[in-house]
Amino acid sequence: MVALGGGHGLYASLSALRRVTSELSAVVTVADDGGSSGRLRRELGVLPPGDLRMALAALCGDDDWGRTWSEVVQHRFRSEGDLHGHAVGNLLIVALWELLDDPVAGLDWVGRLLGAHGRVLPMASVPLDIVAEVELEGRISTVRGQVACASTPGRVRAISLVPPDPPASPQAIKAVREADWVIFGPGSWFTSVLPHLMVPKLAQALHETRARRLVALNLAPQQGETDGFSPQQHLEVLRQHAPALHLDVVLADTGVVDDHEELEKAAVAMGARLVTAEVARSDGSPRHDARRLASVLDEIFHEKR
Amino acid sequence: MVALGGGHGLYASLSALRRVTSELSAVVTVADDGGSSGRLRRELGVLPPGDLRMALAALCGDDDWGRTWSEVVQHRFRSEGDLHGHAVGNLLIVALWELLDDPVAGLDWVGRLLGAHGRVLPMASVPLDIVAEVELEGRISTVRGQVACASTPGRVRAISLVPPDPPASPQAIKAVREADWVIFGPGSWFTSVLPHLMVPKLAQALHETRARRLVALNLAPQQGETDGFSPQQHLEVLRQHAPALHLDVVLADTGVVDDHEELEKAAVAMGARLVTAEVARSDGSPRHDARRLASVLDEIFHEKR
Repeated sequence: MVALGGGHGLYASLSALRRVTSELSAVVTVADDGGSSGRLRRELGVLPPGDLRMALAALCGDDDWGRTWSEVVQHRFRSEGDLHGHAVGNLLIVALWELLDDPVAGLDWVGRLLGAHGRVLPMASVPLDIVAEVELEGRISTVRGQVACASTPGRVRAISLVPPDPPASPQAIKAVREADWVIFGPGSWFTSVLPHLMVPKLAQALHETRARRLVALNLAPQQGETDGFSPQQHLEVLRQHAPALHLDVVLADTGVVDDHEELEKAAVAMGARLVTAEVARSDGSPRHDARRLASVLDEIFHEKR
Repeated sequence: MVALGGGHGLYASLSALRRVTSELSAVVTVADDGGSSGRLRRELGVLPPGDLRMALAALCGDDDWGRTWSEVVQHRFRSEGDLHGHAVGNLLIVALWELLDDPVAGLDWVGRLLGAHGRVLPMASVPLDIVAEVELEGRISTVRGQVACASTPGRVRAISLVPPDPPASPQAIKAVREADWVIFGPGSWFTSVLPHLMVPKLAQALHETRARRLVALNLAPQQGETDGFSPQQHLEVLRQHAPALHLDVVLADTGVVDDHEELEKAAVAMGARLVTAEVARSDGSPRHDARRLASVLDEIFHEKR
């Protein structure tokens, strides 16, 4: 299994997938330019580590050891000083990168520390910037950087990457090519889900792999990025960015489907069947319930749904 | 065995002692106010972690795992920015302190990470300042802080601590009381070796323990602290700060003994016999050779020397 994404969305899919498979790789965006990651990227010239750290934490071991180190890795310093806001795991990952001079080897060491149930890989081996076309009141402007994409008023129409042809991580390509299933989303659509399809060599692997492809739709539109987007619009945006991509399954939470027929049409247009199920938390928050999502994914993987 | 000290001196004694015993505790100064430790202490209000980190690194496991994490822990960021000079292990230790709210538990976790051959304990559970009386051209002035002690021109005459009665670490007291041997030095005499005797409860344990007490003298006087001090003057300073302390063995490198008779007299005055042996590196640097020091200590512990 390969899960693609970044941030909290990927944390959700990994928290579910770790329950249904023992062979799991996460392929993670490296385009963040905000917060602790952005500062590290600027100060030390490294990949932004935050999304990678969060993916590793999602895969941490179930025992006291794994949970404690996961808490350490996720811990953020709070102060009036220089360290404020830095996540400890970000610093640890960056230190391993500086020592080993190999992003994947460094992540593998943190994975071993956490007793991680799976592997975390960067989607590219250089830091990326996302460039977004944003439409506001009929006018289109271009903004650069993940923070700007998420905070500029208006609706994102399309994204591209700088550099436009970054070196993909060979291990990520291999994982995609050898997978049985590739899972897109949930997550920030433009900044965490689509970027993988903008890295040429990785996009090629995603198109050519024999793996089946599942898209897990978000539970709610994301402010600044996909305000007012319906689930079918999410799929349409995906299709615009990867017209030749064949999907097998589109998974949507029952509660977010306002127009079943339209969504099914959008899924079928990409070759997929639509599966709707209750995968949100029961407390009403727009977050996936790891157990429910795991159970539905397991049924899909074993063709029981 | 309990080794007392801080910094590079303690690193040297631990590197030797780990070869001769499987039951080893380090009791470490917490008075540093310079560098990465000083910044963390000021920014986050924690114990200065640097000497503790270095002691943990000295005890790291012999395998690939222990050595790699030891390198990570000892790694320092180099940049033009906020992180410059911070040792990764310092940040890791501080994060564990913030999470667990228990200095010893935090250090034990890092010890487990490194597969440490022994335990590292702070000598007090609050950050300390060293106050030194410094003599220059016949005038005595008082300076506060380890950095100031080491950098103020003149010769240190005596030290005291602020606060004067800090809470000693209960685990350190227990380790001292249960030890067979307690090892003082080598190390910065005023800022790493003597401070333990200024923490009242710890000093009491050091006086009352049934353990035998060994002082390992330095290979060279330390600039700013003990310029021009002979080995016997080191012992005299120790006696001035702890007049009732009984020693069993004073160990000096053959090469540093300029006046064997005088040094022996100073040792005997504290109840000790003098052992001289080649314990320095053969390259002429004023550093202890871990193997040679281990071999001599082993002979002393087994009464073969």
